[in-house]
Amino acid sequence: MLHQILFRDTWSPSASQGDFHAWNPAAGEALPERFPVSRRDDLERLLKASAGAAVELRNAPPERLAAFLDDYASRLDADASAISELASRETGLPVTPRLKDVELVRTTNQLRQAAAAARDGSWAMPTIDSKLNIRSHLAAIGPVWCIGPNNFPLAYNGICGGDFAAAIAAGNPVIAKAHPCHPATTALIARHALAASQAAGLPAGTVQLFFQCSPEDGLWMAADPRLGAIGFTGGRHSGLAFKAAADAVGKPVYVEMSSINPVVILPGALAERFDDIVGQFCTSCLMAAGQFCTNPGLVILPAGEAGERFITAVRDKFAAASAGTLLSTGVRDSLVAGIQKLLAAGAELLVGGNAEPGPRFAFQNTLLRINGAQFLAKPEAFQTEVFGAASLMVVAESIAETANIVARLDGNLTGSIYWSQQGTDDLACATISAALRPRVGRLLHDKMPTGVAVSAAMNHGGPFPATGHPGFTAVGFPATIRRFAALHCYDACRETTLPSPLRDRNPDGKLLRLIDGTWTTIDVGHP
Amino acid sequence: MLHQILFRDTWSPSASQGDFHAWNPAAGEALPERFPVSRRDDLERLLKASAGAAVELRNAPPERLAAFLDDYASRLDADASAISELASRETGLPVTPRLKDVELVRTTNQLRQAAAAARDGSWAMPTIDSKLNIRSHLAAIGPVWCIGPNNFPLAYNGICGGDFAAAIAAGNPVIAKAHPCHPATTALIARHALAASQAAGLPAGTVQLFFQCSPEDGLWMAADPRLGAIGFTGGRHSGLAFKAAADAVGKPVYVEMSSINPVVILPGALAERFDDIVGQFCTSCLMAAGQFCTNPGLVILPAGEAGERFITAVRDKFAAASAGTLLSTGVRDSLVAGIQKLLAAGAELLVGGNAEPGPRFAFQNTLLRINGAQFLAKPEAFQTEVFGAASLMVVAESIAETANIVARLDGNLTGSIYWSQQGTDDLACATISAALRPRVGRLLHDKMPTGVAVSAAMNHGGPFPATGHPGFTAVGFPATIRRFAALHCYDACRETTLPSPLRDRNPDGKLLRLIDGTWTTIDVGHP
Repeated sequence: MLHQILFRDTWSPSASQGDFHAWNPAAGEALPERFPVSRRDDLERLLKASAGAAVELRNAPPERLAAFLDDYASRLDADASAISELASRETGLPVTPRLKDVELVRTTNQLRQAAAAARDGSWAMPTIDSKLNIRSHLAAIGPVWCIGPNNFPLAYNGICGGDFAAAIAAGNPVIAKAHPCHPATTALIARHALAASQAAGLPAGTVQLFFQCSPEDGLWMAADPRLGAIGFTGGRHSGLAFKAAADAVGKPVYVEMSSINPVVILPGALAERFDDIVGQFCTSCLMAAGQFCTNPGLVILPAGEAGERFITAVRDKFAAASAGTLLSTGVRDSLVAGIQKLLAAGAELLVGGNAEPGPRFAFQNTLLRINGAQFLAKPEAFQTEVFGAASLMVVAESIAETANIVARLDGNLTGSIYWSQQGTDDLACATISAALRPRVGRLLHDKMPTGVAVSAAMNHGGPFPATGHPGFTAVGFPATIRRFAALHCYDACRETTLPSPLRDRNPDGKLLRLIDGTWTTIDVGHP
Repeated sequence: MLHQILFRDTWSPSASQGDFHAWNPAAGEALPERFPVSRRDDLERLLKASAGAAVELRNAPPERLAAFLDDYASRLDADASAISELASRETGLPVTPRLKDVELVRTTNQLRQAAAAARDGSWAMPTIDSKLNIRSHLAAIGPVWCIGPNNFPLAYNGICGGDFAAAIAAGNPVIAKAHPCHPATTALIARHALAASQAAGLPAGTVQLFFQCSPEDGLWMAADPRLGAIGFTGGRHSGLAFKAAADAVGKPVYVEMSSINPVVILPGALAERFDDIVGQFCTSCLMAAGQFCTNPGLVILPAGEAGERFITAVRDKFAAASAGTLLSTGVRDSLVAGIQKLLAAGAELLVGGNAEPGPRFAFQNTLLRINGAQFLAKPEAFQTEVFGAASLMVVAESIAETANIVARLDGNLTGSIYWSQQGTDDLACATISAALRPRVGRLLHDKMPTGVAVSAAMNHGGPFPATGHPGFTAVGFPATIRRFAALHCYDACRETTLPSPLRDRNPDGKLLRLIDGTWTTIDVGHP
């Protein structure tokens, strides 16, 4: 039986051009359910319904959006076991603790934070010039297409992840595309989305879902004027294609694409906390078979005995740890290709480097090494992202060489520096920080990059090619909501026609607004 | 004598490939001064110096940036007569009131508002999660290339306009490109910029200037990784080229390109305030020869006697008013081409349509008309921007047709609705507003779009193709500063290494920060 797409609050047969199935990666077996590859007719009707919902949503009070998000979160929590088991079957990720205790909890937490931000309303930065009667705020941008990645079937899923929550909180309908690695999970979650949307009385078509389309049709949709914005998390190749299609028509597109997350370990830290750092690195790099966008893929170490011991210790742990299950044969193929590229550029293979035998999708934990001069000779090749449990050790002769290496880094989501607590690395850390800071979204001290807290202070973003714009974050309310908004100004508009956050009277007495240069909750004209 | 470029705080001979001169548009005469067309060598050294200045600027306290901006404003005010006279000679715009009493005052006001915002610091939205020790704020993005337009020799000039002020307030060095219409004015202003920069002790190369380069070299520079962002105001052709070059390498690029600024006049308003609206429209459309990006280029009127009378009254005023002076022969050529395109699509010429005879750069005030059906048949052709004192009247049969026309509009900077004070247009206004709101950055009631107040609540921006991203404004502090910033997050970083706005202690006791979900000025850990 072929699954149906979610169109205008109805499960509807797809105008499909073929179908696909997901895999059980742990068994290396095809799963029986079939999902449609939509033709353009599907996309056309989804876009039309979404545009209609966008118009209706403009008049929906934020409380209704918030109620939807809260209720949706509760429904997902209530169905945690079924969702996690299905997601585990499709991804090979363990139900416990990963899916049920961590990722689903994070997902519903995000939905609830989005609800709170929608209720609060200050994300929209209402600004009033009472003397000139000019008023502005950020407002819904229109239908948002959310395209999630393979590695987070829940927290970044287009139907319930961070982009989804942010787009809804801003007042937009969402068209979600399932990732082909976990379509059944996505379809199950979408049933809860639909029930919650209808319970909240949101317009039909506020949440819609399809499963797959051809690349050409995807780029056609990306450029469609009915679409307000796009949120994408995935590989660089697809990300750049979506970005180019949307950029050409001036449509905001937020792509989180690739990152090797450099980790610089300075000599004092290595002397001080050797075992700790070995342990932290191995955990961070091997967890979930390394399938994190913040996986530490490049480590810069000091040349010498301690650095050599570090590499040996990591190599031994990599060899001893069993290989995790990969999400797909695609991830395995891209690991093979990435490692080949590093080897071709001159990297030395220390451990791993091959697919695991057997039906399970798996690849050996892999460690490679080069020296600083090699990196500096081929900085582009040695920044090949290898998505999985693989990392490249770069042995640098000096702090100056380390700084030179850092200065050749592309944009990354994160950059970590381990440095002594005793003062011996202070100068080196200052030098490296100066080079690293503009190249990463999040700078860490004495901490591995995996683990992205859902915090208002988080930046899960960074300079190109990590993302398409260094000013935005994909995680962290309220900032992440602002990606899916347009700035709306009202100049001399009559008060009765203004959106409620911009009227003289503070809508609930609590909304923070910038009135005549001061952030305040008072009413206009009532000092 | 060939002018020199401003490189690293020194007036330096250009590596030029030829030179150019400006014109006195009022006399139609070439001006004697010669300005270099820079070769790539110039751009290369400007970029290198700017990248160096960016590193040094990271440690500059905001007070130093603010002092520079304030002092720069004072120096421009003190030299107001010379600057205005030179700008008038190069642009044909009158010294009084336009340049000296309005545009220069606006320009120095912008610089001072930028100074105040830099001192205040809240534009950067410092955000602290004290429990997780994650902290973030917006920070300098790197060298900003500011490219100003022909029509504002002061307020949008790359060396002193809104983009310049915003880029500096965010802590970035600026490379300004003069507009070829007013290079001498720009060179004079740059002397004041240099003096102020040196007086404030800013790093050498914080403010640099060149005059012109080839289009190919310009696109090469737009893609250079040393450049953090680009601010551009000008025509759509150049804007799209810069945007494409920067987008391809993921560099933030803010282009303000084109807008026809639709004005909808509803029947009740026409009955109520006929003469007023005729007067307001003619003033707005003819002022400064119509050379404003917010010029009302499209008016949608009700069919019938009042609409016909309106068109006749406007036509008579257009015919009676003398033609203003155009900035260049380029503006004249593009007026000819734009009007030809409208005529070819079927518009009827009511008055004007030809260049004025004589040496002065001038074009007759021009009014054209079509009906709603014509617009709906060729919406693209009838949205041709005609930059100058020209406007297209669209006579619509009904409110429904008006709404259909509005629904076919491209993105614009502004949209105006004139509607009755007596209630007769309320329903129509609601219908038109719903269609117009998502298509414009600034919605106006009973007001023409020209006149862009420098207010925190202003949006001088809008959906594509008015600009490249509907979430940003080119006018209005502090929002406009955020265009030139990257989001910097610090995760578990030791406090002594944090930028001062993110340390536990509020740097001046007044900085507004989002700490654990509350906007506050208290110190971290001191409730």
